[in-house]
Amino acid sequence: MHLSLKYKEIREQSVAFCSHLHIEDYAIQVVQFASPPKWHLAHTTWFFETFILKPYLKDYTVFNPDYNFLFNSYYNNAGDRILQANRGNMSRPTTAEILEYRTYVDTKMLNFLEHQTDKTIIDLVILGLNHEQQHQELLVTDVKYMFGHNPIFPVYHSDYNLVKDHNSTTGSIHVKAGIYTVGYQGNGFCYDNELGVHQVYLNDFEILNTLVTNGDYIDFIESGGYTDFNLWLDDGWSWVNANKIAAPLYWHNIDKEWHYYTLSGLQKVDHDAILTHINYYEANAFAEWKDMRLPTEFEWEVAAQHFRWGKRWEWTNSAYLPYPNFVKEHGALGEYNGKFMSNKMVLRGASVATSNHHSRSTYRNFFNPSESWQFTGLRLVK
Amino acid sequence: MHLSLKYKEIREQSVAFCSHLHIEDYAIQVVQFASPPKWHLAHTTWFFETFILKPYLKDYTVFNPDYNFLFNSYYNNAGDRILQANRGNMSRPTTAEILEYRTYVDTKMLNFLEHQTDKTIIDLVILGLNHEQQHQELLVTDVKYMFGHNPIFPVYHSDYNLVKDHNSTTGSIHVKAGIYTVGYQGNGFCYDNELGVHQVYLNDFEILNTLVTNGDYIDFIESGGYTDFNLWLDDGWSWVNANKIAAPLYWHNIDKEWHYYTLSGLQKVDHDAILTHINYYEANAFAEWKDMRLPTEFEWEVAAQHFRWGKRWEWTNSAYLPYPNFVKEHGALGEYNGKFMSNKMVLRGASVATSNHHSRSTYRNFFNPSESWQFTGLRLVK
Amino acid sequence: MHLSLKYKEIREQSVAFCSHLHIEDYAIQVVQFASPPKWHLAHTTWFFETFILKPYLKDYTVFNPDYNFLFNSYYNNAGDRILQANRGNMSRPTTAEILEYRTYVDTKMLNFLEHQTDKTIIDLVILGLNHEQQHQELLVTDVKYMFGHNPIFPVYHSDYNLVKDHNSTTGSIHVKAGIYTVGYQGNGFCYDNELGVHQVYLNDFEILNTLVTNGDYIDFIESGGYTDFNLWLDDGWSWVNANKIAAPLYWHNIDKEWHYYTLSGLQKVDHDAILTHINYYEANAFAEWKDMRLPTEFEWEVAAQHFRWGKRWEWTNSAYLPYPNFVKEHGALGEYNGKFMSNKMVLRGASVATSNHHSRSTYRNFFNPSESWQFTGLRLVK
Amino acid sequence: MHLSLKYKEIREQSVAFCSHLHIEDYAIQVVQFASPPKWHLAHTTWFFETFILKPYLKDYTVFNPDYNFLFNSYYNNAGDRILQANRGNMSRPTTAEILEYRTYVDTKMLNFLEHQTDKTIIDLVILGLNHEQQHQELLVTDVKYMFGHNPIFPVYHSDYNLVKDHNSTTGSIHVKAGIYTVGYQGNGFCYDNELGVHQVYLNDFEILNTLVTNGDYIDFIESGGYTDFNLWLDDGWSWVNANKIAAPLYWHNIDKEWHYYTLSGLQKVDHDAILTHINYYEANAFAEWKDMRLPTEFEWEVAAQHFRWGKRWEWTNSAYLPYPNFVKEHGALGEYNGKFMSNKMVLRGASVATSNHHSRSTYRNFFNPSESWQFTGLRLVK
Repeated sequence: MHLSLKYKEIREQSVAFCSHLHIEDYAIQVVQFASPPKWHLAHTTWFFETFILKPYLKDYTVFNPDYNFLFNSYYNNAGDRILQANRGNMSRPTTAEILEYRTYVDTKMLNFLEHQTDKTIIDLVILGLNHEQQHQELLVTDVKYMFGHNPIFPVYHSDYNLVKDHNSTTGSIHVKAGIYTVGYQGNGFCYDNELGVHQVYLNDFEILNTLVTNGDYIDFIESGGYTDFNLWLDDGWSWVNANKIAAPLYWHNIDKEWHYYTLSGLQKVDHDAILTHINYYEANAFAEWKDMRLPTEFEWEVAAQHFRWGKRWEWTNSAYLPYPNFVKEHGALGEYNGKFMSNKMVLRGASVATSNHHSRSTYRNFFNPSESWQFTGLRLVK
Repeated sequence: MHLSLKYKEIREQSVAFCSHLHIEDYAIQVVQFASPPKWHLAHTTWFFETFILKPYLKDYTVFNPDYNFLFNSYYNNAGDRILQANRGNMSRPTTAEILEYRTYVDTKMLNFLEHQTDKTIIDLVILGLNHEQQHQELLVTDVKYMFGHNPIFPVYHSDYNLVKDHNSTTGSIHVKAGIYTVGYQGNGFCYDNELGVHQVYLNDFEILNTLVTNGDYIDFIESGGYTDFNLWLDDGWSWVNANKIAAPLYWHNIDKEWHYYTLSGLQKVDHDAILTHINYYEANAFAEWKDMRLPTEFEWEVAAQHFRWGKRWEWTNSAYLPYPNFVKEHGALGEYNGKFMSNKMVLRGASVATSNHHSRSTYRNFFNPSESWQFTGLRLVK
Repeated sequence: MHLSLKYKEIREQSVAFCSHLHIEDYAIQVVQFASPPKWHLAHTTWFFETFILKPYLKDYTVFNPDYNFLFNSYYNNAGDRILQANRGNMSRPTTAEILEYRTYVDTKMLNFLEHQTDKTIIDLVILGLNHEQQHQELLVTDVKYMFGHNPIFPVYHSDYNLVKDHNSTTGSIHVKAGIYTVGYQGNGFCYDNELGVHQVYLNDFEILNTLVTNGDYIDFIESGGYTDFNLWLDDGWSWVNANKIAAPLYWHNIDKEWHYYTLSGLQKVDHDAILTHINYYEANAFAEWKDMRLPTEFEWEVAAQHFRWGKRWEWTNSAYLPYPNFVKEHGALGEYNGKFMSNKMVLRGASVATSNHHSRSTYRNFFNPSESWQFTGLRLVK
Repeated sequence: MHLSLKYKEIREQSVAFCSHLHIEDYAIQVVQFASPPKWHLAHTTWFFETFILKPYLKDYTVFNPDYNFLFNSYYNNAGDRILQANRGNMSRPTTAEILEYRTYVDTKMLNFLEHQTDKTIIDLVILGLNHEQQHQELLVTDVKYMFGHNPIFPVYHSDYNLVKDHNSTTGSIHVKAGIYTVGYQGNGFCYDNELGVHQVYLNDFEILNTLVTNGDYIDFIESGGYTDFNLWLDDGWSWVNANKIAAPLYWHNIDKEWHYYTLSGLQKVDHDAILTHINYYEANAFAEWKDMRLPTEFEWEVAAQHFRWGKRWEWTNSAYLPYPNFVKEHGALGEYNGKFMSNKMVLRGASVATSNHHSRSTYRNFFNPSESWQFTGLRLVK
């Protein structure tokens, strides 16, 4: 597909997801890590303006000079910015103004791309589109977080339940000990943190074809999983007690029956559906309870060609650290991934909220071990 | 004026003020003490529904049973409620739904009032209207706080500058020592905290006809007022240092000139206009610097018949405590005033944001000594 | 008594109280507001060194120049100092070094006082001795706080139970409405905050001869006093819930029987003894439950000539604010009282931990409404 | 050496280190992670009492039943315990009582060990002695922290400067790509986290023989290392800004010259001595500035046979995670290491504060990336 068409298609998807929202929904920030929808719409636009139009389009006039301060996310090289926690304090610019901003930048971009052949620019646009897709996933999870914490549990759309998938296979895969090659080797797009193809030595292991289900996890809860300190990492046990956790995010026990908030509203938990919204500590405690363990990211990557993945981001037991020979880009784009390489765990795969064609088996997602507002799941290794 | 007309007029004023807002503005909460406009619109409606329609209108059906949880402010007797800090986390119900709620309740109320003669009910309606007027003032100050903390300083309305008033007189008033009677003695409406008419002994004092101006306060700032600990109460000095305060709320020094945010946008400070948005600690430090003092609430009440007031809520040096023979009502309405009688200072008068006919010389307003988002000012006693 | 003798006697009492401590006890700080005993011993010495020896004794050499930084409490005019919360982080100077410091300063002081006739100096010494006595009371309450929060409840001294006093009278006193004079009128020592003798108008009131007992308070607890929000001030109710309070400080319900920590160890609560260690919120809620109220500080002062007081500091319903014509001294000693006149309530009387001859009926003690580690009690007004 | 002798020797070393302290020094806790010396002396004794005497010595009577609550560190399986942050709030039991406790337990232990042949018990004693040695290192670092944060910088001992070592070699070591075996393979003592000998694939790398010196680090500081965000991990940059960090722990710039606190007092920084007291973020930023990197823990382990180590705990770029086939023991001793495997980075080697014979090249130490009160250093990889 021509890059302009791809640009148009992907950019439109962000707005399309928001079409079911009311204006008030665009503006709210419930928690520091979940940004308001209008902020996502503006920030992804700022990304194209800042990294492509301003440096490469001759005589480009910025839409509004204040927007660099308002819509920079975390790029120190791109200047000062509002605190992440304050994104929801800005009722202005309004959603309408931000949609105008998108139109303004898109018009310039589409013109600019029409006969574009410069490899540097094309690579930046592809990066910008992948960036947009990452924010499309955050739009879904951030809206879910906002609605899931509203006591009246608003329905995003009656036909938008992302937590109903079931496992389609059973059994497990056995991988033999030996040297394996990991990291991205193709010619398409990948992030810098996937590069540095290298060899790793893996021991024999057996990994399940199936993801843990809600029913499995209810067994864990009912057998006292949240009260047995021997199952938990020390930090996890502190998290459980400080926050009085007794079930996954969005779960509510109503009249002795488990319910969860979905984007289609509050529903009974489907025992056979795949579990989601657990954090690393919960994943780890569950594995401990099962007397099994999480895969490392390399075990996962090697085995992933043999099982079906993509419904849940899967927690691994690997910390997010640089590959050998990892090279950080200069300037702002070097801040995209590298600077987050501490205190985070790697997730592999993709989820039901991930845009089409956005993931691959070498993709490294990463979150704090206490976070669970992504569609996270769990696959066990014996 | 017939009560129905008065009801209609006052209720309409709340919505009228909001007519200059965009939808996003209705939903945002920037700080715990400043609620979103749509919350104010809903809460004042809930007040009539809860204290009049539900107990007194036969067969009344509540608009939405969830609203009691969402829009109760602080009445423990009226049941559980969301935390004050979470009022801005609720994008739903939308503004449109809340306006429907207002219409629903207003229709019932107007019907109910048409031939209403029951004194208890009439008194409750008048209380509800006074309550609505208090929230009208909060609407103004809360919107100002939201816009004043947005880095792009949105304009509420180009012709809505509430901080431009000047003193119209000079000189001072001398009050002789003796016994004076204080507290509300009329036949109209007053709050329970004004009752308990009683006598107090006052010493001789002389109180200024004028309120402190911006120019006076700039002198204080420029002579090092914010850095001289001898001028400050201990709690005030902690507040200055913890928050790195160097000027009143909304003031910004831009290119060595003082500006302030007004509802008409950012403007140069008018040196001759009356100072506002100072807290008790600042008022006290300024008085100390002038070698004068604040009046007590009783000095103010006795002298107020002789000077013009109503532009600023005026800090007094009286703690908010019960009058002799103060009687708290039973049930939820007993929570209206009495339970706040600790850690607060009394303000007397009214401000440019106060609704017409809402104040009187016996009115006792009260805030924490660190708060300054109301239109607060300062009158000195020699 | 000659001033030198008085100096010697009072200074020795501080050390005498500490003679029952082990060295570790001198160094610990459990909570910000309760200082380590060795800090009290040093700070009271620093007071004489700073305000008398340094300015008035020719050629005086300070014992150790670091001590000004370490042992200044809150006098901004006397220079920088360690944070109050860090007083317990300093194992050095050791107790032995601080006792040397005391000896050094006392020797100089006693010499200096021998033929001293300068009124300014004599007044400062008397202030310093009153200051020492205030810290003697804090020594008792701070040691009690430290031991009372140690899970093994150490015994300070087997014969040092300060909470065993009973009421010796019954009945009440009726005071007639009228103008009364309040404030210190004698020739002896008083603090600046007692000055400004002035007139107040009091209404008729009736005040009890007796202080509330433990048994009275157990009735309050057992009738649900800590769970009925209607009895509490709003700030008090927040305090109860945030801290899960269900009984006074130092009380423990063991096998369904109330015990309290005393300086003689953990004991069963004596129902007939006078209640202590309640804060203002608890005092207020109890009065509300009894359908009575606390006296104001002026009611107390006027009535105090008629009842026996001195066993408990008694909470009043007066905020700590300046008297008319209050004059703050210049310099550091002006910080002694005046700067604390916000967010505090007045207590009147004295307690079993107060040094002899240290109090009088005009004495104004003041604490935050949430504090209860002093020997605080409660007298009711009808 | 016979186990009894070893027991005696190691136990005596803990007390010997404390012999230079004053009694006040034993009791203080300045920060949550650094415990009071008397707590260390008691806790290591509790370890022998709890895991050996109570389960294995027939008719053993505990010294004091309260001590289990007071001196358990983090073993959930061993029951409730005081919060770590409250260890310094307990002036009692006194140091003298704790030394009695040591004598009591040591007497029982030495008796019990005399003809002991039970392998389980002998292994537990060896674990207990290694545990004691870990606390000996903490005694040094915790006392340094306490004294280093006292504004008068007490001298522990005039001849106890642990930061004066210099590098004795230069150059670097080249390790070829290939499969290497890691993990403990000997017959002596090791911790459970070193077990699971396994193979890893390493790429070619070159590691320096020398540790980074103070002079090297001063270059980093003076070239703006603490202000260039591009050098820092995102969490590190937050740490720098939140804490206003501009130099390593214990460093002070006095009259434009760098000084540091040592256990022999405040001294000028020796430019040629080996750097210490940097955290992981600082180590990482320094490596980034040098355009080099930290070794992984396996690179370090493989190369360590070729260079001299043991002066500083060396930060690696490996997260602390379980080895393949890691097996956690059942019960309390399973909590020794395994539950801390999240949010920590591995350090390898040993330091000048480590007891003799306590470390080995497979030893895995671990701390939070923000911690630097251990004698931590840095070795670079090209």
